[in-house]
Order: sequence, then C-alpha cells, then structure tokens
Amino acid sequence: MPIVAESEARQTAERALVRAGVPAENARLQVDLWLDADLRGVPSHGLLRLDRLAERLAAGLIDPKATGTQEWRGSSYLLVDGENGLGPVVANAALDAVTARARETGIALAAIRNSQHLGMLAWYTERIARDGQAAIVLSTSEALVHPWGGRHAMLGTNPISIAVPTGEADPFVMDTATSRVSMGEIHDYANRGEAIPPDWALDARGDPTTDPQAAKAGAIAPFGDAKGYALGLAFELLVSALSGAALGTDVHGTLDAVHPCNKGDVFIVIDGPKTAGLSAYLELIRAAVPASGFDRVLVPGERGRAKRAERMASGVPIADAVWQRIQHLAQGAPTAEQVTS
Amino acid sequence: MPIVAESEARQTAERALVRAGVPAENARLQVDLWLDADLRGVPSHGLLRLDRLAERLAAGLIDPKATGTQEWRGSSYLLVDGENGLGPVVANAALDAVTARARETGIALAAIRNSQHLGMLAWYTERIARDGQAAIVLSTSEALVHPWGGRHAMLGTNPISIAVPTGEADPFVMDTATSRVSMGEIHDYANRGEAIPPDWALDARGDPTTDPQAAKAGAIAPFGDAKGYALGLAFELLVSALSGAALGTDVHGTLDAVHPCNKGDVFIVIDGPKTAGLSAYLELIRAAVPASGFDRVLVPGERGRAKRAERMASGVPIADAVWQRIQHLAQGAPTAEQVTS
Repeated sequence: MPIVAESEARQTAERALVRAGVPAENARLQVDLWLDADLRGVPSHGLLRLDRLAERLAAGLIDPKATGTQEWRGSSYLLVDGENGLGPVVANAALDAVTARARETGIALAAIRNSQHLGMLAWYTERIARDGQAAIVLSTSEALVHPWGGRHAMLGTNPISIAVPTGEADPFVMDTATSRVSMGEIHDYANRGEAIPPDWALDARGDPTTDPQAAKAGAIAPFGDAKGYALGLAFELLVSALSGAALGTDVHGTLDAVHPCNKGDVFIVIDGPKTAGLSAYLELIRAAVPASGFDRVLVPGERGRAKRAERMASGVPIADAVWQRIQHLAQGAPTAEQVTS
Repeated sequence: MPIVAESEARQTAERALVRAGVPAENARLQVDLWLDADLRGVPSHGLLRLDRLAERLAAGLIDPKATGTQEWRGSSYLLVDGENGLGPVVANAALDAVTARARETGIALAAIRNSQHLGMLAWYTERIARDGQAAIVLSTSEALVHPWGGRHAMLGTNPISIAVPTGEADPFVMDTATSRVSMGEIHDYANRGEAIPPDWALDARGDPTTDPQAAKAGAIAPFGDAKGYALGLAFELLVSALSGAALGTDVHGTLDAVHPCNKGDVFIVIDGPKTAGLSAYLELIRAAVPASGFDRVLVPGERGRAKRAERMASGVPIADAVWQRIQHLAQGAPTAEQVTS
C-alpha cells in the first residue's frame, strides 16, 4: 500500500475535487475531513470515498457550492435544508451559527437534512471541544443494521460522537457507530478471504453467517445486542423527528451514485463545560492496572490521535487503487463548468 | 411474593415517606417514580429503594423539602444545585423550567448536582414526550463498571433515556444503562444461588467470575465492550462537566446511607419534533420477520408498558421483605418534626 505524504495526499485530493467542480474552499474542507480519517486509521471514512463523490457530482446529485438554507426555530434550534450540498460544507455553515448561538444561550442545536455524507463525526466534535464547548453529534445512514431479533437491515449504522474539553491539551472525543462493526470491516474480511466472527452479521435470508461475502448482502448486528439496537433506533427516530430526514430503508445516497441523499444529522453544542477534575480522572483511567489480555486501559480517541500525529510526520497509507484513482481525477481535463466560468 | 393492588402500594408507600418527614406532594412524586418501575418490571428501581431513602432521611443526608437552586447560564441552560433534595422533586422543578423554556428557544438543558437518586429515567422522558417534546436524559452513579480492559470499577452505570413523540398513542421511549447488567441482576443471581454468565462481571481482583457473590465485590462489564465503555465514559465526563458532579470512585450517595449524594443528571428537552413517518417505520419493525430463536421483533419500552397496563389492573408483585418493611414504616410513630410542626 503506498505511503503518501500528508501534504501530497491533501493537495492531490483537493485538486481532484476542484476538477470535479467543487469550489476550492469546499474541497479543502471535504478533503480535510477525509484525510483526518485516514490519518487516524479509519480508511472507511477517508479518501476512499472521493471516487464515489466524484461520480455523484458527475451525476448532478450534489450542489458543490450549497451551504444550505438555515431557519431558526426559536433562538437555539437551527433547522437546515442542505440543498444537496457537501456534508462538511453544510455542517460547517450550521456549526458557525450554532456554536456562536450557544455562547449566548448556553445550548444550541442544528438539525440538517438533504446534505451528503457527514463523514467521521469526531472531526466536528473535536474542533468544537478545542474551542471550549461540549458537543453531541448524531447522524443516520442507509439501513445496514438489523433490529435485535430481526432478520433484515432496517436501521442505519447511526453513529454518535461526544466531545468534552478536559483541561488537557486534547479534548476527550469518542465516536462510534451503533452497529457491531462497519460494512467497511466486512469488506476488508471479504478482500482478505477471511471468515468473520459469528456474531457480526446475518446473510440475505437473515441467518447468521461467517462468510463476509454473504454478510455484504445481509445485515450487520447492532453493537451490544438489545441495548445497542435501542440506541440506534432512538437515534434514527430522533434525527428524523428533528431534521425531517428519511427513515430506515427509505434512506439513500451516502453510499450509492444514483439517489439524492436524504439522511439526517443533529449537532448539539453546549457552552461553558467545566473541566475541574476531568484530567485527574482520565489520568486514573490511563494508569489503571489492565485486565489479563490487555496491555493497558485506553481512553477512547487517543489511539487514533497518536496514529494521526505519527502519520502527519511519516505519511498516510492509502490503498493503491484509491490513490491511483485520485491521481487520475486530479490530472483529468477540467469540467465544462470550469471552462465556461 | 405478595401481589399488591397498585393503589394500596401507592398509598402505603406515600404514608411511609410522609412518616419519614417528606411533604405529601414530594412523597407522591417519589412513590409514583418507584411504583412506575415496579409496574414495568424493573424492581431494582422500585419500592425496594424506599427503606434506604428512609435511612438517609433519618441520617439527615436529605432535605425532603428542597427543590434546588436554579441558575440560568444563558437563556437555554439551567444549572441546578439540588441542595440534597429528592431526585424526582429537584428534577421535576427543573423540568418545569426547561420544558417551558424549550417551547420558546427550541432546546433547553438542565444540569443537576447534589440531588438524590434520579430513579428510572424513562419516567421523566415518557412524560416529556407525551407533552410533544423530545428528551435525552443522562445520569451518573457510584463507580460499578470497569473500563474496557481494566480490572476495577471506575465508571457509574451511567444510563441514557431518549424519548420521541411518534404520533402513536404512546411515545417511543428507550432507557438503558451503559453497564452489561445492573448490580440488582447480579444480586438476584446471588439470591437464587445461580452462576452468572462469564462476560458479566469481574471479581474483586479484577478477574472474570461466574460467582455472583464474587461479582458483588467486583465490577460489572460495560455493555458492548469497548463501544459501551466509550459511551459510559463520555456520559461520566459530560454530566460532570455540565453539572459539577463528582467523577468515578468519588461518586457516592445513591446506594449507601452515609454519604451526601454527589452524582449528576442532565436533561435535554427539544421542542417541536415532527412525527411524520415515525409510526409507519415502527409498524414495519413490529411486523418484521423474527430471527430464529425470537418470537417477534420488539420496539424498546413496549414490553414494560404492556406489563404496566396489566399490573395496574391485576396488582404489583413486591418482594415480601420490601412490602413488610414499607408497611412497618407506614405504621410507625410520626417523626419528631411532624409532632412539632
């Protein structure tokens, strides 16, 4: 797998998006989000996604300039129609509004529909927490997860990220899907020809399978059985009720190249969290005696952050086909729009 | 186990609290909360808790009249010092303020410290959702849960409840701890002399155990391994940062009879959720073909609600010792305060 210098990956990917018709500033945001995932070791949310976005742009499913229409429902609740804009572009415009508003009101919420894939939620929550605010972010996706006790996918992977400033150099940031694993991990097992563990997924008929190929046509289990299902379902309902997003198998457009994207995102920003005692508590956790089979007790988010620091210096592994495709797109002819505008 | 008529259980328990010095209106709230848990089949959060609260009242750890001191930090963020008041009394006063405020601002938050055990979170969120608002509630507790990869309890059971109006007669309500099981369930296994499953808990040395007696002195696993740990830790930090509550092993007072209670609670109330499509989606889930080994696919909260309806009619099972103790307390001599006031 090629190891690409961070700056080269960034510039090449930005150029590819600009060639595809994305304004430079929006390409910068979108690539920063993807690259942050690759740097942290989450390639499923990284530059891998560029090719599909370029396809969606070419198909006219995305307005690469749109920042969304913002409507305040009360002083602390921002409802956003993303107007088919890029996920991080629409979200950033909304966050500019709600982080400022939360400084006045204490808490503010943005609920977004009709924008593209939000990407790795930690990218958003980490920045909010670095500015001294706490954040809770929810997002929905295509139905990939079966209800606990069900046979077929009826829920998104519905991730949650929470970030809290701690008084340490870096905030606490957790970010997890409510699925047992990501579909990307199942694809990785399929590519390696390895069996998946028996509790990860069901096949297309809804029976347990250890065959990753069968699982790709089936449904992923919710994490933590009934409890993770309850959380994932709560997020599905809450995000839809607040943003107007679609539900369950009606959700499309974060993975395919043919449907407008109708999932939803919810950002809750809370001002003025206190940091007293948080670092001391985290230090106790880091210093805790590990259980047998563990080297140490981890604080969520810290392994990815360490990997990011290392890769900023030494380069980012990017799958060969992904990197070749990005280079190809970056060198392509300018689009008709670029020629005429 | 005695089956007690709902009204008899309610009146007797209210009388016991009034005898212990609780104003009648506050006793009514506290008993309604407990009894709702018994009705739904969650006795660990039910009238079982009355005896310990009476002990805490006798020890002067509780101000049964306190409704808390409320301070607005911005228009949408209410910070509450519970002043050692009863959990539901302080929370209800805060909810009166933030549910009204959310109708103006779209979203409002209450963060509470220094009040007694909040009890079953679904009691709060269900009522908020019946009034047409969405709710997210978090609460912390004594450290009973080990970090993933750790040996000793360093986190509370840190439950979350989310409720969303759906357009159906009843709102969607989920309520789950971030622990694998409750300490109450482990006590139940111990009382029956049965082994617990191997992934539920660690013993006092931090080694896996199937002996419930050993688990009682040890730590409960987080649900869903690393993911549930990440969520539980996020809630621990967020609740403390927003409310000023203690953290980890510094948290006391929801279980013992000697410490002031210093855990925290966070209520987020969101106004104006839309119900379009929610009921149709839930109907699809209820009608889904169950996996092998399952009778049907459940929507979280509905089994408890059905049990509650049944027990409202046919009576509530209450453990013999619990019911005898409540009857004894209800018949006891009035307290000194009642004689003099």
